[in-house]
Amino acid sequence: MTESYSELNHVSDEPLVKESRVVNLGSFITPTENFYIRNHYLEVPDFSETTWNLEVKGCINSPLSLSMNDIRALPKKELDITLECAGNSRSYMMPQAEGIQFNHGAVSTGRFKGVSLNTILNLAGLKSTAKEIIFSGGDLGTEEEDGAVFSNTLTYQRSLTLDQVRDENILLAYEMNGYPLTRDHGFPLRLMVPGWYGMASVKWLVSIEAIEHPFNGFFQKNRYVLIPEGPEGTTLGEPITKLAVKALISTPRHGEVIHKGPFTFSGFAWSGWGHITKVEVSVDGGATWGKARLVNDQSDTAWSKWEFTWQANKIGHFIVKARAYDSKGNVQPNNVRWNFRGYANNAIQTIAVRVASGRQ
Amino acid sequence: MTESYSELNHVSDEPLVKESRVVNLGSFITPTENFYIRNHYLEVPDFSETTWNLEVKGCINSPLSLSMNDIRALPKKELDITLECAGNSRSYMMPQAEGIQFNHGAVSTGRFKGVSLNTILNLAGLKSTAKEIIFSGGDLGTEEEDGAVFSNTLTYQRSLTLDQVRDENILLAYEMNGYPLTRDHGFPLRLMVPGWYGMASVKWLVSIEAIEHPFNGFFQKNRYVLIPEGPEGTTLGEPITKLAVKALISTPRHGEVIHKGPFTFSGFAWSGWGHITKVEVSVDGGATWGKARLVNDQSDTAWSKWEFTWQANKIGHFIVKARAYDSKGNVQPNNVRWNFRGYANNAIQTIAVRVASGRQ
Repeated sequence: MTESYSELNHVSDEPLVKESRVVNLGSFITPTENFYIRNHYLEVPDFSETTWNLEVKGCINSPLSLSMNDIRALPKKELDITLECAGNSRSYMMPQAEGIQFNHGAVSTGRFKGVSLNTILNLAGLKSTAKEIIFSGGDLGTEEEDGAVFSNTLTYQRSLTLDQVRDENILLAYEMNGYPLTRDHGFPLRLMVPGWYGMASVKWLVSIEAIEHPFNGFFQKNRYVLIPEGPEGTTLGEPITKLAVKALISTPRHGEVIHKGPFTFSGFAWSGWGHITKVEVSVDGGATWGKARLVNDQSDTAWSKWEFTWQANKIGHFIVKARAYDSKGNVQPNNVRWNFRGYANNAIQTIAVRVASGRQ
Repeated sequence: MTESYSELNHVSDEPLVKESRVVNLGSFITPTENFYIRNHYLEVPDFSETTWNLEVKGCINSPLSLSMNDIRALPKKELDITLECAGNSRSYMMPQAEGIQFNHGAVSTGRFKGVSLNTILNLAGLKSTAKEIIFSGGDLGTEEEDGAVFSNTLTYQRSLTLDQVRDENILLAYEMNGYPLTRDHGFPLRLMVPGWYGMASVKWLVSIEAIEHPFNGFFQKNRYVLIPEGPEGTTLGEPITKLAVKALISTPRHGEVIHKGPFTFSGFAWSGWGHITKVEVSVDGGATWGKARLVNDQSDTAWSKWEFTWQANKIGHFIVKARAYDSKGNVQPNNVRWNFRGYANNAIQTIAVRVASGRQ
């Protein structure tokens, strides 16, 4: 089954990559058909519940092989979670960075239901020598870099340290927005790591393995690391983890013509380091800023919606910016430090609007 | 006759717009097949020398109707002239500006031969009441803006003031790079205004008219003006005229992998306000700068080629910038002030290169 995804902007078919339209992100929860998709391999597993099992193995006391019925019988947990691709806003990096040239639409928020990862880990019983947990997807492929083929990563794999998996909000999710996960969102089970860039939330989860050493897989060490300007060091680069604080302007679009009178800008803001405490908006290119309203209750796992009403009294062209602050004191920069793959671009978004005299 | 222009990057067919590939700009003169094209209207005149005449009229003593034979019989002048489209580098404007999203390739240099405009104006004899000269092309079309159709500009028209036409380097050119102008470059005659953005160099020139008042045509007042951020003033915007000082990096391309050892960056630099006095190159993102060599003799009408040899001793990613200075003391800025149509973007160009350890 291949879906057409008429509500998403096309980025790539092989692998399947689709960007959300920022005007279609919803009032808070992004409808599944509008939710961005970033797969890694051409081959996406077509699991049925009867052919699928989750293996829990490695440095544990009780290896497990769980069916979807087993997993659904465990205590349920439901969370609103904002997922942002590490490459979101990459096309605004200067100079241009390597990779898919996403605009600002590789971010979405869904309501995910599943079981807490810790419930499973407690059932399995981690041995005291365990250091990291590898999460493996059922998607298959190879990666090439500088002529070398990384065949050790036949499936998409990411790890978390024991410290990182303590977060009770990490889910093994089987539902998204009230329905079973769709195939392209990881059916039947997806690891959901709230507050982290999307690469941590492994789709089509087939195994959880505790290991006694740091994991060095392709998507852990060769991708999703910040490679800065300058002579290369001895390491490949600093890994990206949690979402950098960021505000998105979803209304209006860049270049829109609005009319004299009150106009309400709106959008979302999120951070993986804490909740959003403030969003500010400028309508004069950053010279002065006003405080936006935060509309929904603050969440540790999902974005906040913001609104800002402007009295547009004069015709002309106006440069609008929005910047977010989080509870850890982080604020967005005007520019981020360049990195080769253009990850984690949370530079302040800037659009222009034109105020016209009347309805046309 | 429609040419395929396989050496140019496609921008638009209607009207015909093609961008040069910066690696194909030549060592100094851009080959005609690599020379950028920016036409305004769908309909491009298909003149033959027998059906074409240049009318010189208006506020003059001796109206003229000149054939190509008449014009070729006049004293000849040959100049190397750099033409840059006012929208060149527009795609790097932040936020995105209105118009064709040119990269850095809407600039080229040709060798143009023709007659000095002043030779023609002296033959016609301007009256003392003349204030401006309108140059009309033979291309036809209409322009719409905010629902209004500008039917007063059936042909592409631009004016110059009497002060501006005093420049002895302004040509009525009939040859480009040793051959008659091609159709898409304005056959049989093109006004060439060295040092100005390309909009001043009217193609398919059919008439020169002296008038006693300022010209208010569409391409004089509604286009090619800087509309800044902020409430609109009483005028439509400041017109753009001469080329802002600018350096282009033509070798290597952005993202290229180079090898340890000496590497020579090269490119061009130009200004409409004076000749180029210095080009500087940075390989550390602008922290430090070294002086480039200026290769050709300095010209008032054409670009200068520059070269900069770097000892690439360490592997890694390096951000390279080039900035030009002119004899009037102008230097390129890191960022230009935003304008609605994204004209005259001479912000310092920035590319990234990767130094690898050896030949691959």
